[in-house]
Amino acid sequence: MSERIPVGILGATGTVGQEFIAGLADHPWFEVTWIGASERSAGKSYADATAWRLPAQRPEIIAGMTVQRCEPDGDVPNLVFSGLDSSVAGEVERTFAEAGHTVVSNARNYRMETDVPLLIPEINADHLALLDVQGRERGWPGRIVTNPNCATMVLTLALAPLRPFHPARVTVSTLQAVSGAGYPGVASLDITGNVLPHIRGEEDKMETETQKILGTLNGGAVSPHPVVVSATTTRVPVLNGHMMLMSVDFDSSPSEPELIDAFRSFAGRPQQEGLPTAPDCPVHYTGDPDRPQPRLDVDRERGMAVTVGRLRRCRVFDWKFVALGHNTVRGAAGAAILNAEMMRVDGLMGQRAS
Amino acid sequence: MSERIPVGILGATGTVGQEFIAGLADHPWFEVTWIGASERSAGKSYADATAWRLPAQRPEIIAGMTVQRCEPDGDVPNLVFSGLDSSVAGEVERTFAEAGHTVVSNARNYRMETDVPLLIPEINADHLALLDVQGRERGWPGRIVTNPNCATMVLTLALAPLRPFHPARVTVSTLQAVSGAGYPGVASLDITGNVLPHIRGEEDKMETETQKILGTLNGGAVSPHPVVVSATTTRVPVLNGHMMLMSVDFDSSPSEPELIDAFRSFAGRPQQEGLPTAPDCPVHYTGDPDRPQPRLDVDRERGMAVTVGRLRRCRVFDWKFVALGHNTVRGAAGAAILNAEMMRVDGLMGQRAS
Amino acid sequence: MSERIPVGILGATGTVGQEFIAGLADHPWFEVTWIGASERSAGKSYADATAWRLPAQRPEIIAGMTVQRCEPDGDVPNLVFSGLDSSVAGEVERTFAEAGHTVVSNARNYRMETDVPLLIPEINADHLALLDVQGRERGWPGRIVTNPNCATMVLTLALAPLRPFHPARVTVSTLQAVSGAGYPGVASLDITGNVLPHIRGEEDKMETETQKILGTLNGGAVSPHPVVVSATTTRVPVLNGHMMLMSVDFDSSPSEPELIDAFRSFAGRPQQEGLPTAPDCPVHYTGDPDRPQPRLDVDRERGMAVTVGRLRRCRVFDWKFVALGHNTVRGAAGAAILNAEMMRVDGLMGQRAS
Amino acid sequence: MSERIPVGILGATGTVGQEFIAGLADHPWFEVTWIGASERSAGKSYADATAWRLPAQRPEIIAGMTVQRCEPDGDVPNLVFSGLDSSVAGEVERTFAEAGHTVVSNARNYRMETDVPLLIPEINADHLALLDVQGRERGWPGRIVTNPNCATMVLTLALAPLRPFHPARVTVSTLQAVSGAGYPGVASLDITGNVLPHIRGEEDKMETETQKILGTLNGGAVSPHPVVVSATTTRVPVLNGHMMLMSVDFDSSPSEPELIDAFRSFAGRPQQEGLPTAPDCPVHYTGDPDRPQPRLDVDRERGMAVTVGRLRRCRVFDWKFVALGHNTVRGAAGAAILNAEMMRVDGLMGQRAS
Repeated sequence: MSERIPVGILGATGTVGQEFIAGLADHPWFEVTWIGASERSAGKSYADATAWRLPAQRPEIIAGMTVQRCEPDGDVPNLVFSGLDSSVAGEVERTFAEAGHTVVSNARNYRMETDVPLLIPEINADHLALLDVQGRERGWPGRIVTNPNCATMVLTLALAPLRPFHPARVTVSTLQAVSGAGYPGVASLDITGNVLPHIRGEEDKMETETQKILGTLNGGAVSPHPVVVSATTTRVPVLNGHMMLMSVDFDSSPSEPELIDAFRSFAGRPQQEGLPTAPDCPVHYTGDPDRPQPRLDVDRERGMAVTVGRLRRCRVFDWKFVALGHNTVRGAAGAAILNAEMMRVDGLMGQRAS
Repeated sequence: MSERIPVGILGATGTVGQEFIAGLADHPWFEVTWIGASERSAGKSYADATAWRLPAQRPEIIAGMTVQRCEPDGDVPNLVFSGLDSSVAGEVERTFAEAGHTVVSNARNYRMETDVPLLIPEINADHLALLDVQGRERGWPGRIVTNPNCATMVLTLALAPLRPFHPARVTVSTLQAVSGAGYPGVASLDITGNVLPHIRGEEDKMETETQKILGTLNGGAVSPHPVVVSATTTRVPVLNGHMMLMSVDFDSSPSEPELIDAFRSFAGRPQQEGLPTAPDCPVHYTGDPDRPQPRLDVDRERGMAVTVGRLRRCRVFDWKFVALGHNTVRGAAGAAILNAEMMRVDGLMGQRAS
Repeated sequence: MSERIPVGILGATGTVGQEFIAGLADHPWFEVTWIGASERSAGKSYADATAWRLPAQRPEIIAGMTVQRCEPDGDVPNLVFSGLDSSVAGEVERTFAEAGHTVVSNARNYRMETDVPLLIPEINADHLALLDVQGRERGWPGRIVTNPNCATMVLTLALAPLRPFHPARVTVSTLQAVSGAGYPGVASLDITGNVLPHIRGEEDKMETETQKILGTLNGGAVSPHPVVVSATTTRVPVLNGHMMLMSVDFDSSPSEPELIDAFRSFAGRPQQEGLPTAPDCPVHYTGDPDRPQPRLDVDRERGMAVTVGRLRRCRVFDWKFVALGHNTVRGAAGAAILNAEMMRVDGLMGQRAS
Repeated sequence: MSERIPVGILGATGTVGQEFIAGLADHPWFEVTWIGASERSAGKSYADATAWRLPAQRPEIIAGMTVQRCEPDGDVPNLVFSGLDSSVAGEVERTFAEAGHTVVSNARNYRMETDVPLLIPEINADHLALLDVQGRERGWPGRIVTNPNCATMVLTLALAPLRPFHPARVTVSTLQAVSGAGYPGVASLDITGNVLPHIRGEEDKMETETQKILGTLNGGAVSPHPVVVSATTTRVPVLNGHMMLMSVDFDSSPSEPELIDAFRSFAGRPQQEGLPTAPDCPVHYTGDPDRPQPRLDVDRERGMAVTVGRLRRCRVFDWKFVALGHNTVRGAAGAAILNAEMMRVDGLMGQRAS
């Protein structure tokens, strides 16, 4: 384990790309050795090509690297993380998979494909078995693995511990941070002292991705979980942190202590394996009636834990509660890094074919 | 109609009191001639006693008036508006009612009393018939009339047009402005770049007040409307405007055009009578998918109209939509002023007994 | 006066263009009959071409108008307001002047040209005499008149009343609203819970435009005022309102009452002529130590007045004070409309030559 | 060094007290063993007495400690940090000094006393010699040492490196974070989408404290530095980070490289001694024209470094630049902890006399 695995980053200059670089600085297993971005950036140093917008310092070693075109060739490591915009991710990621690369992607393009894992390793590490199907059906030597939309991530991590109680219907209203829209993203004129009642495309993703993530692997395919989700998504002037206001109707009758215990004891393979990016406790339950809050809770466990609170009876469904998670860490770059760690432990980081 | 009716304001120096003064400046029917506040302010000029915090200019004529103790005596007009804090409103309002005054109150203390109208005149002007019961049962010569909590107001105005379709279950999540918490209210350290997942006492008010407001008058009592409401209330860094994210299950199957038509055609006695503070159209429906927004929509019809948008199917209930209203105008001082206008037209502004 | 003068708007779909349309709705003298914008918008209805972003309702009569290319032809009224971006304003405005139009522009391109008035009619209405020079030197039948940068406007209106005391040196630090950057302008990720220490190009404009505006007309040219200005400009998460923190060194020794009187009694030709858009009082002085504030003071006199407060001794210069004005009204569209009103009264709205 | 020095905290439940507790968790030299607060909190556990408002987790070991009255007795450690409000700090700190304690205070009460060090150890560690004078003149066995106001701290750290060039006149405008006002501090109604032009008492502190801090020790007294400071202080909706917009006139003519070098090479005894809380580099100079920003720069070196940027010529003085520092860390609790570390190294942590 003394030598680190080289990795590349597709879309390295963008918002998610910067999060990948920050999240992989000092990573014990992975080392960024290749960075790719758009035609416009290619050939420049990373420092010149990038308007770095994170409080974390830009690693000096990356600053001097030359940005490459997003094309697979001999220098690109087997493992590439993709922070590409969905407008280009579809084609680029396919090209890399065809060239034998393992693509661990944050983009939405392949998430709902039946042979592509939509992976949250605490919840559905077994869905990685879809990679065999993907290899057979696509006939490409590489693989694509995805993580969910940032709001879906928080919703699903809060819901997964409750699967034993058979959640049947969920209404969720979100208050989402501006960083979820990338850069430049939301115009300040639209959000200063204001909230926006709509995030395009977001509600549908939450309603469909959740069923796949919580679904059951049956003979090479995922049977969607029967839970029905209805989402309303809003934007608020918060920097980081998506908040979910949830009401859940169950097909059983869990008690308050049972639910709290389910949240607190929730863990999965990342915790069993002690993956470097894994939180000790994926879901933190708090009894403080004024929590979770973005300011106070978004960075728990370096942004990798979801915080749940305000558990109480609902007058129309069974239970209500509030969940909060870090949209650019747990909901994006950190999610993909954790996915890659899970795959490595499971021996799914195949050598590139070419 | 050439002479204006003198009115007093209880709690004139506070946030709601300031809204009363701004809302009554140049009122065609009412003229503020008496202002009362706490012991600490009594005896001072209004200018000295008040840290005026509204963009609207403080009326010069009020600035020079002397603040009185909140005690009924010969100089207090028959009609008094109450912007008192609930910690003192219970006793003070009772004292004024006992002294024969008509108290039009924004405080929560008497809202759920069975003989006190919880009035939104577009919805339940007939509930004013409770005033006879109140006189008989309380044995006081005056009367108390209340308006709902500011979040309830927006919720209820958005729901009332849909009564013909028999709403049965509602989940509502709110994003509420800081002005709803009064002054100093929410600490800036708590809300700068942040949202708060809880507003104490608010959810219960929304769940219970709504049923009374939409209820039916039966022989001197209000039968609560059967709609079941489940509310989650949050605070956001917005100055004015409470937003409601609503899902509604109906006992009938209204179509989208039927719902839109119901919103747009909704009107009540304030519109029929042309009350001075009444909006032409209490509910504005907008087809713009990014509306309503506090910044753009809160001041419609001088803050007296509620804006509804984003009507769409819900996967767990029948329909979802978003509603927005001005919490300190339609949800507080403007509501009480409209109530007083309704009462005057209905001849319920009895002369003080004393 | 019963028939209104037809006017056109260049750049009608942008932020400043929208302000023009809002500011000219119900104008007693001017009527918008022609709207021009970029190639992309031309041919569409204004409603379709424009993402309307003002709380003021979009006038219905404008919504149905067809957007034209920004080219002078027979249908364009003589008087056109320009809300064009500086990247195109230079050429388009010249083309219109060459075609005989009177162009009243908010763009920066011609502001510092020696034969173009940089007009604030309360301060330098006599600078309109430059228009004769412009006609002679340019040889075009039309005319171009400009208003200053939005921050310069507030600075200069606060400084002009003090000219009798010979201001010699000024340091000014600004806290500027996001609307000053247009749309989409500042990214919310950059300004949520944050301030930015730099606005590109702004400081130079404030330092040079001020000297021209306060300058003296001498035989067909403006001699710059000798005041030396040093500006530092910052962006803050405020929607509307630029705040100026000013220290001024005078070549005389004015007293506090003299300064306050100078602010309060300041007026110019717009007030003498009673121009429709003119504030009654261009500078409001307030003794409240916590004012001016954007929230409370930006809309004074429909956004056309500047508020000054916190006058006190400076330890390094003579006096310090704070000034605030509405950047998109007094600092942009309202300024240009007032300029056009001044020109009309002075008979400078020549008929188009063509 | 294996045993840590026990320390107490006066005002442990307040905003600054919480910062002390967070800053001393895992401190290599100091260990919190005693916590004191007001009568109201005394006797409760720290967890019960405190509304913890920091994102940093509350240390479990402190949570269970019992809050004591702020009275010196046998159990109080020799060294106490004071985060008391100035309304009570004067008397309490004196009482502790009289009882022989070393009081390292963030309160303003004793800052300008001639025999009390106003200490920033990078700048004036030699001022600790005042402690001898204090002992002689006050006749108390303990000692009081203070750190400056949070805005003064940032200003002075940015100015100190330039002392070799003889700064003579400074105008500084500040944009200050809401955390500087404590809790509840600034009302959200006052600052949401707004800025405030005044912070009471702040300007005077900056103008006077700076001269003492930069002053020269002469025979048991500090001769104030001759620099004349004129400050204007404003509040902005930022959580943490005070920004200073500075113009400086020098009695010499430093070049840009000389100034940049002076910032970058600035260091003092904390750096020489490697004090645990000391930043490696107290002043970071950045050439990025859009920096410093609170969001990106406030946490540099765990909040203990000040960032300077935008160095450029001033038209009225010599040079302008922008400085930023963390007001509750470098400007409050971190400052006091660094002071105590300096004193320990200098052997000034005398045993309590009692």
